[in-house]
Amino acid sequence: MVSTFELEIVNSTNKKEKPSQDQVPFGTIFTDHMLTMEYSSDQGWHEPKITPYAPITLDPAAMIFHYGQTVFEGMKAYRTEDGRVLLFRPEKNFERLNLSSERLSIPPVDEKLMLEYLTKLIELEKDWVPSTPGTSLYIRPFIISTEANLAVAPAQSYKFMVILSPVGSYFPGGMKPVIIHVEDQFTRAVKGGTGMAKTAGNYSSGYQAQAQAKQAGNADVLWLDGVEKKYIEEVGSMNIFFKIDGEVLTPELNGSILKGITRTSIIELLNSWGIPVTERKISIQEIYQAFADGKIEEVFGTGTAAVISPVGELNWQGRKMVVNNHEIGELSQKLYDTITSIQTGKVEDALGWTVEVK
Amino acid sequence: MVSTFELEIVNSTNKKEKPSQDQVPFGTIFTDHMLTMEYSSDQGWHEPKITPYAPITLDPAAMIFHYGQTVFEGMKAYRTEDGRVLLFRPEKNFERLNLSSERLSIPPVDEKLMLEYLTKLIELEKDWVPSTPGTSLYIRPFIISTEANLAVAPAQSYKFMVILSPVGSYFPGGMKPVIIHVEDQFTRAVKGGTGMAKTAGNYSSGYQAQAQAKQAGNADVLWLDGVEKKYIEEVGSMNIFFKIDGEVLTPELNGSILKGITRTSIIELLNSWGIPVTERKISIQEIYQAFADGKIEEVFGTGTAAVISPVGELNWQGRKMVVNNHEIGELSQKLYDTITSIQTGKVEDALGWTVEVK
Ligand SMILES: Cc1ncc(COP(=O)(O)O)c(C=O)c1O
Ligand SMILES: Cc1ncc(COP(=O)(O)O)c(C=O)c1O
Repeated sequence: MVSTFELEIVNSTNKKEKPSQDQVPFGTIFTDHMLTMEYSSDQGWHEPKITPYAPITLDPAAMIFHYGQTVFEGMKAYRTEDGRVLLFRPEKNFERLNLSSERLSIPPVDEKLMLEYLTKLIELEKDWVPSTPGTSLYIRPFIISTEANLAVAPAQSYKFMVILSPVGSYFPGGMKPVIIHVEDQFTRAVKGGTGMAKTAGNYSSGYQAQAQAKQAGNADVLWLDGVEKKYIEEVGSMNIFFKIDGEVLTPELNGSILKGITRTSIIELLNSWGIPVTERKISIQEIYQAFADGKIEEVFGTGTAAVISPVGELNWQGRKMVVNNHEIGELSQKLYDTITSIQTGKVEDALGWTVEVK
Repeated sequence: MVSTFELEIVNSTNKKEKPSQDQVPFGTIFTDHMLTMEYSSDQGWHEPKITPYAPITLDPAAMIFHYGQTVFEGMKAYRTEDGRVLLFRPEKNFERLNLSSERLSIPPVDEKLMLEYLTKLIELEKDWVPSTPGTSLYIRPFIISTEANLAVAPAQSYKFMVILSPVGSYFPGGMKPVIIHVEDQFTRAVKGGTGMAKTAGNYSSGYQAQAQAKQAGNADVLWLDGVEKKYIEEVGSMNIFFKIDGEVLTPELNGSILKGITRTSIIELLNSWGIPVTERKISIQEIYQAFADGKIEEVFGTGTAAVISPVGELNWQGRKMVVNNHEIGELSQKLYDTITSIQTGKVEDALGWTVEVK
């Protein structure tokens, strides 16, 4: 018998068929196994298990359903040309998971141990990591509050899980600049709120704004700060960068935007190339002025999903700002190429960002 | 066989023991049955069922776990002295449920039909409605997004549920004024956000502030507006009223506070007594000034849980405002007595607020 603190592995005996690599829909196909771990106030985190992917059973009064005490992460495993499997800065995701948990009053996990367990899970599911360019195995760690109790208070019990989903290329037809609506009515996050945490409520609260923006032909929204509706925050699931008159700019971490791991990596990469990045408050008015002055060179979103998503147009209060003639900027392309090459082992990982799963 | 649109009732054959009426903990004991209903984009809401209370099974990728697309309600069934069971303005709860759903991009339910189903459920669980003064049967309707999909977008499938929990008196030792911390760091909600909706994420986002306030000896926090941190919004799960120099005041509905049904009822009741209620922006500075001038007569929270919760002290940036010498105000007491008497059928329900469950 395994101790309640040792990883138990139960192999699936009924393996699923893998999807065709060319037509993998995002986030609806899951691998054969999942990782689970339980928390109780007397035992702490315990019972780590890798078991066949299966539904979970919860009391209808489980706190997750009522008060949203939950956090999650998003990362990827990449296949190299020579068939190896690499993770990209996974320790940063577990670090951020714990930061999110702190904001949501959820007990922290052991970051090193979680990475160890995750590595075991990916090892077992190695065949699920696709190899077509642009594809990857999406990794979704999350924690939900499971105590059955309608009291509005932190739970006494939680479940940590990791599920895996093979995903297709973010740009199946090749990278393409998107049109983004600058949102000045709805608010995603505000000072003193949960914007810096990766927690469920931050996402569904954006659906109305996103639906309206999409209806008007935009791919997503660019959120402005919740206080003055003046300063740029981030796009749906991406941070945002500007290249204006030769200078690279991105909104500073102000407590209401997520500290993207792609964002951090881009800043470090640019610095390693001798290109400084200015992190500061950036007003939408200032961007409009730079546009009017013909000084906006590039705009791009950054996140695990796309790595780099060039922005070809920003719509703000009926004003249209076309960026770089709807074409991919040189820096955007170089950053995309470099990071995806590091992720897939095509170039030397000089910055030590990847972790191989043996 | 029942059609998928007709209510199916499956009786529990294994009835639970009911808790002693004197020691009912809040929200951890549930009755023998629950109501469930499913939504799919092709069938709409279907399969309404009353079945034995039981755990539910969801895919780990169910959207509720990841993006928090969910809404809920809270209401109560009361036992009259002559043994009847009354609901208090239940139609208002289903109306608000749909308003919350709209904000969260969840398809609306048929309000009248839901009230019908709820009535059937309460009928079946009538014996669970306790009779000791102050006790009631707490009713928790909620909707969760169930589609297994990691895409950040509204779900294609949902589950509506109603669970019931007998609850003890909010003030077991008699009504007692509480100490409240005025929160000026953390933010609950902001203009353009989800504050006016009863959705999960709004609650867990308050845990850190509430824990800090409790540590300092306060019962809960009074939230200020997210933009200027200047205007009073509401308490944890209650709206707030002030009686200052003879005038009754409450914060106006500004999009970031919940439109409490107790709040609405108090305004209507006071109006029926010829007492006007001013709904407007109220700054904490103004309250402090009124306190300094000796003009604050009463402060009280209002909500389904307590009906009226008198506030005996407000703590704001190290300044302590003692209200009415920590005693229950006359108006607070009169409102509490009147509303609880209407809820339990002790006085004539002149305003037509109660609905009897036969
Ligand atoms: C709100 C938000 N901002 C930014 C990002 C980008 O973060 P990362 O680069 O770590 O994927 C994400 C996605 O993960 C996100 O959800
Ligand atoms: C945030 C919030 N405000 C106010 C209230 C009071 O609303 P009601 O009077 O309908 O119970 C509640 C509780 O239901 C609440 O959750």
